[in-house]
Amino acid sequence: MYIHSVEVLDKRFKMGEGAGSDATHTNPQYSYAVCVLKTDTAVQGIGLAFTLGAGNDLVCKAIQYLSVKLVGTEIEELMADFGTTYRTLADEPSLRWLGPHKGVVHLALAAIVNACFDLWAKARQVPLWKLLLDLSPEALVNTLDLSYLEDELTREQAIQLLTEQYKTRECRNAVLTTGYKGYDTSVGWFNFSDALIVEKTKQALDKGFTAFKLKVGSDDPLRDLRRAALIRQTAGDAATIMLDANQKWNVPQALDICQRLGSINPYWIEEPTHPDDVFGHRAIAQAIAPFKVATGEHIPNKVIFKNFLQAKAMDFCQVDVVRVGGVSEFLAISLLSKKFNVPVLPHVGDMGQIHQHLVLFNHIGMGHENLFLEHIPHLRPYFMHPANIVGGYYQVPQEAGSSSDLKI
Amino acid sequence: MYIHSVEVLDKRFKMGEGAGSDATHTNPQYSYAVCVLKTDTAVQGIGLAFTLGAGNDLVCKAIQYLSVKLVGTEIEELMADFGTTYRTLADEPSLRWLGPHKGVVHLALAAIVNACFDLWAKARQVPLWKLLLDLSPEALVNTLDLSYLEDELTREQAIQLLTEQYKTRECRNAVLTTGYKGYDTSVGWFNFSDALIVEKTKQALDKGFTAFKLKVGSDDPLRDLRRAALIRQTAGDAATIMLDANQKWNVPQALDICQRLGSINPYWIEEPTHPDDVFGHRAIAQAIAPFKVATGEHIPNKVIFKNFLQAKAMDFCQVDVVRVGGVSEFLAISLLSKKFNVPVLPHVGDMGQIHQHLVLFNHIGMGHENLFLEHIPHLRPYFMHPANIVGGYYQVPQEAGSSSDLKI
Repeated sequence: MYIHSVEVLDKRFKMGEGAGSDATHTNPQYSYAVCVLKTDTAVQGIGLAFTLGAGNDLVCKAIQYLSVKLVGTEIEELMADFGTTYRTLADEPSLRWLGPHKGVVHLALAAIVNACFDLWAKARQVPLWKLLLDLSPEALVNTLDLSYLEDELTREQAIQLLTEQYKTRECRNAVLTTGYKGYDTSVGWFNFSDALIVEKTKQALDKGFTAFKLKVGSDDPLRDLRRAALIRQTAGDAATIMLDANQKWNVPQALDICQRLGSINPYWIEEPTHPDDVFGHRAIAQAIAPFKVATGEHIPNKVIFKNFLQAKAMDFCQVDVVRVGGVSEFLAISLLSKKFNVPVLPHVGDMGQIHQHLVLFNHIGMGHENLFLEHIPHLRPYFMHPANIVGGYYQVPQEAGSSSDLKI
Repeated sequence: MYIHSVEVLDKRFKMGEGAGSDATHTNPQYSYAVCVLKTDTAVQGIGLAFTLGAGNDLVCKAIQYLSVKLVGTEIEELMADFGTTYRTLADEPSLRWLGPHKGVVHLALAAIVNACFDLWAKARQVPLWKLLLDLSPEALVNTLDLSYLEDELTREQAIQLLTEQYKTRECRNAVLTTGYKGYDTSVGWFNFSDALIVEKTKQALDKGFTAFKLKVGSDDPLRDLRRAALIRQTAGDAATIMLDANQKWNVPQALDICQRLGSINPYWIEEPTHPDDVFGHRAIAQAIAPFKVATGEHIPNKVIFKNFLQAKAMDFCQVDVVRVGGVSEFLAISLLSKKFNVPVLPHVGDMGQIHQHLVLFNHIGMGHENLFLEHIPHLRPYFMHPANIVGGYYQVPQEAGSSSDLKI
């Protein structure tokens, strides 16, 4: 199957009142820069990068520039040594000046890489999770670019890690029957009223969810404390509650407020300060222990993840496959996290569509703990195969590919 | 003086054979995304962001998106509290998703902020260095956004630092007579032959330069060692020689090669590995001491600079005003570096045009050591007022503004 041409789509979606709002991103319009790999067959590879609307066109344009070299390649040949292609794309000598490995050009790379994996899985007529599980450790590592990680994770160490986990896969296959637990982010958007948060939490409880996220980072910390207490009261002591500040606080503010938010026993506090601030996160993580810090949705690449892990600055790794350089870099970061014994619980700019495959592989193939995956339902109507959550569990997707097809 | 409209120009320049090449950026076309602030007078504010050609249009488009809010503002009113405006632009709720504070949107911010400072200086009919020196510590800090630095540098600390240096300015004014020493990067581009490096070094010596840079990072380290020995031999033992790997090595490679390059007694080794790698740079800096590590041309923002400084991972800070968020963030990072006693020796994506003003202010106003400033001559013909180097010294610019006007 050959890639004949690349089409790029700028898709922006309508949002409900207040939906998607947080302390920093006040009026988002969920959008995808979409890379469509057209082939000599009816099959197309679809890859997504996520934005909040404004500037989605910049990512689209960058996809056009970066994807030129893929035209004419055969998908199996391409993926047999995809790590090399990845590095060539990521290090395009002039475009990398605009990053490197961050910002618009890296979001574009995410869409392109995701389209390649989607096409590969469709060519083999299997879901992405199965494609990944069927690869040998060597073949899997061939799809990764581990450059700049050598001081922590060499190719040989990556293969060894996967090989060791290969032996014990059987005992983790149960997740293919039960599905993967989801948690509901849509109960506690920043602009939602107190009453609406209570209502949404009750609805989510009725649907079987046991874990919920609340947006914090209000100008008045008392608002955060009040709403956190409210959701704890509504969901009960057994519920898992995560608090997400979306980068709103500086380090001294975070140190103060996070301690006080400990009163509702949060499972984690997410993005307490600037996403680039390794030492800031470390200081916060040390100060609020045993409460834990989660971050990663805005960390752009494996090198900065490496630094966070080396510094013990994140207790949970929230790498997002539509933020970093696609499936390839997501898996490299997951391997690195496994080495550091840090769980991977992705942020879902893709609404969980691709990540539902990746967490299955991370658990079965890489030995990551089976925890839960964020669920955001707002774009369900636009997907051909929207993630299917039953009783609070992501059902295992069976269609070929990465569940990224949109109703275009 | 009111900003009436914003024009954006995509300027790409012809380069000589091999000029500008390094181990990573093999075939650059020096280019500027230019923000032109048009006013109700004949005066225009010009702001530059630097790229290597491909994708310059993406930065231009982002300038258009981000600059809208400036239309209608009066320049003195704008600059009286520019720190607030800076933060509003840097944190535009949807566009910041494409960074935050990095990549294409941040390069666009650089061009916009630089145009504001250029216009301000022209409105007051003084060179930028004099504008900055004439501001009170409070007025200068009002132009900065110190958010996310509070754990290391509060507003009060910044004012205090500037106030202390204010008292001892007189003894540093000599630089206004002597000019600021330059160093020549154009002798040792990566693609230059050995013979051309010798020839260019001799020419630069004849012009009065005493400091030179050589690009390293060859696939064969022996090529680096040979060329480094050659330039040392040509320039003599008293010359200052800097080696620049442009991110080519991973950490284990850098640890090996940097030790061997110590044989030519380099003044610094620049960008030995990935620009985001705080702990990698720290490991290299510790291993090669007393040789020193310089980095910063690809560090996108103050938060990552803060981490590098906290980690003692850079001996020289090479912040570039056309990479970070313009003059405003350059000054914030310079203040932070001063606090950590790390010298600021900018990388000159602007060819030294704006930086010649900023190093004068950093020395006189902030107490930074008077060292030397990179000089790259390739775009001289395109500037209205190209930096004037006599006997190896940047002559103090006298024209109003930031010397950013191009022959358009």
